[in-house]
Amino acid sequence: MPIDPLPIAQALIRCASVTPADEGAMAVLEGALAPLGFECTRLRFGEVENLFAIRRSGGNGPHLCFAGHTDVVPPGEGWTHPPFAAEVEDGVLYGRGAVDMKGGVAAFVAAAADAVADGTADRGTLSFLITGDEEGVATDGTTRVLDWMEERGVVPDMCLVGEPTSKARLGDTIKIGRRGSLSAEFTIHGTQGHVAYPDRADNPIHRLGRVLHRLTERPLDEGTEWFQPSTLQVTTVDVGNPTNNIVPARAFARLNIRFNPSHSPSSLEAWIRGILEAEAPRHEVSFSLSGDAFLTEPGPFVEALRRAVRAGTGEEGALDTGGGTSDARFITRLCPVAELGAVGTTMHQTDERTPVEELRQLAALYGAVIRECLG
Amino acid sequence: MPIDPLPIAQALIRCASVTPADEGAMAVLEGALAPLGFECTRLRFGEVENLFAIRRSGGNGPHLCFAGHTDVVPPGEGWTHPPFAAEVEDGVLYGRGAVDMKGGVAAFVAAAADAVADGTADRGTLSFLITGDEEGVATDGTTRVLDWMEERGVVPDMCLVGEPTSKARLGDTIKIGRRGSLSAEFTIHGTQGHVAYPDRADNPIHRLGRVLHRLTERPLDEGTEWFQPSTLQVTTVDVGNPTNNIVPARAFARLNIRFNPSHSPSSLEAWIRGILEAEAPRHEVSFSLSGDAFLTEPGPFVEALRRAVRAGTGEEGALDTGGGTSDARFITRLCPVAELGAVGTTMHQTDERTPVEELRQLAALYGAVIRECLG
Repeated sequence: MPIDPLPIAQALIRCASVTPADEGAMAVLEGALAPLGFECTRLRFGEVENLFAIRRSGGNGPHLCFAGHTDVVPPGEGWTHPPFAAEVEDGVLYGRGAVDMKGGVAAFVAAAADAVADGTADRGTLSFLITGDEEGVATDGTTRVLDWMEERGVVPDMCLVGEPTSKARLGDTIKIGRRGSLSAEFTIHGTQGHVAYPDRADNPIHRLGRVLHRLTERPLDEGTEWFQPSTLQVTTVDVGNPTNNIVPARAFARLNIRFNPSHSPSSLEAWIRGILEAEAPRHEVSFSLSGDAFLTEPGPFVEALRRAVRAGTGEEGALDTGGGTSDARFITRLCPVAELGAVGTTMHQTDERTPVEELRQLAALYGAVIRECLG
Repeated sequence: MPIDPLPIAQALIRCASVTPADEGAMAVLEGALAPLGFECTRLRFGEVENLFAIRRSGGNGPHLCFAGHTDVVPPGEGWTHPPFAAEVEDGVLYGRGAVDMKGGVAAFVAAAADAVADGTADRGTLSFLITGDEEGVATDGTTRVLDWMEERGVVPDMCLVGEPTSKARLGDTIKIGRRGSLSAEFTIHGTQGHVAYPDRADNPIHRLGRVLHRLTERPLDEGTEWFQPSTLQVTTVDVGNPTNNIVPARAFARLNIRFNPSHSPSSLEAWIRGILEAEAPRHEVSFSLSGDAFLTEPGPFVEALRRAVRAGTGEEGALDTGGGTSDARFITRLCPVAELGAVGTTMHQTDERTPVEELRQLAALYGAVIRECLG
């Protein structure tokens, strides 16, 4: 009889752990994992609680790490069930984090308990890298735990991130990479003047128009084998000039690029700087990188995940790199990393929820993952 | 001994007639003109005082109208002499309106007084069209006085506007036309979305970029015999999106076109609408015309002005159509109109001022204009 993930998920949901609050969520996990033989280390960085839990086998078996987070986005208004009550109605579990991703964390804990019970866990090492700062700025979360692990020589052979990757049916999608995200903001300086004497002015909006044109006139690339094309979106342009007879002195713009591995942050920065130099020499520009692009090339780990998906759900586990960023972008520097989890439809929404049966299927799927990965 | 324009200019400057205030300025003119035989009619439209004063000869001589304004722009801060004190220091008259254009009005009053005294005025008809709403929205000023004149069949043969047209030396420039001014503002609608999924969004800033590019990529024209090229200046673009992961729903822009007679307001509107239709079908656009382009083709009136300039100042009176709009754009529908007046360097600035000697030269120049125009 497999361990039921439902009560673990409910205990987690009942901790109102909106980033960076913990509200006892890590303690719930410690309480579940310590009895299974996991060595638990609480890692507090700044305001953020993190947890690293590891269960080492005696031998040289592989090390599978499960990465996840217990923090959630704010619930907002309008729920039909209280967001932190974890109520079950008609076989559906309601609550903030039911999908993203307390449900996934609970499912993996249940799967680990089964693996300990049936001896599978003894074929290798299992660990949990759990952060309370995934939905926030992510500076005091996964990256700092990874630093801590590296300092101690704890480097997994593979890592599964339990984000809700499934689109319509559990297991239909495995994410093996994500595009990077680079933001830029720039101010173009011109020379203020009267519209009737434009030869004495230098209109920064006209320069901005040429910059926008060059930034957006053609696609950044055509995509790669595993990635959709990179995209650039200008998110705001602002001048705030109330007077229609004055050429303004400056114009501001901000943009974001989601890029695949055919670009690097530095190649994109150089491209943008080049356009600005050519069209608007007097400018200031700054860049901020929220994540480089990464890809885990399909190989033994990804194949193990696909076998587990086929065994656990009958789905094909299509390989995908779409969507926003996740903490997998940090983990990629340590080991092959992929993401596989619940159906994400209601994540971040009002009445976030999951069928209890699907939660149990996810635990079974993760059980298959452990079996496949520990060989 | 010619009449001195200085005390008239001082009396006008001492009325703090910032648009639409009058503060007694029209009364100063009535007091000066009525004794010379001018029939004075005060025309109040809305908040604005206007004055029409006419002195008819017995015969069929030509009718020369002088058009001007007694309102001034706000003084601002930092004057070395109080802006409404009309102080003279080292032969220089200081005060708001000294140049634009109480000085010019005073100079023409002095010239008219001389023309009455020496009998020149009896060779035709002289009139003054003086408004208190030139620096403002100009809706209750010159246009309404012109309507009133037309209703009464009072149509001059020619009109001189006393704006400060001279650039470096008195009489160096006569304005025989001005470009028109058309403003447009538009909102481009897109579809809001997440930057990571741009295929589900429709970025209005990218559409705006293409619109800006097409509006500004080439000159509107190369200019005409009498006009510099038309110019288009975008004066603001605004989105106000604070979030760099959201594609905004709309983008706003405003622009102004200064155009010569090779365009009409309707041809320009059609051109802008065409670009918007092509690049951003979902948009709202509105236009506002502050003045059509006009040109007084060089002919007998302009030649008379140039003879007067040569006689009065020794300058050549270069014909010009540059700069901003003036009330001449309204008067052109009634009769040939041109602008000739003081050196404009300090207009609208702190410490607006004119040498007293130059003010007297301007009165002499206007005296020559009256002689040349009344034949």
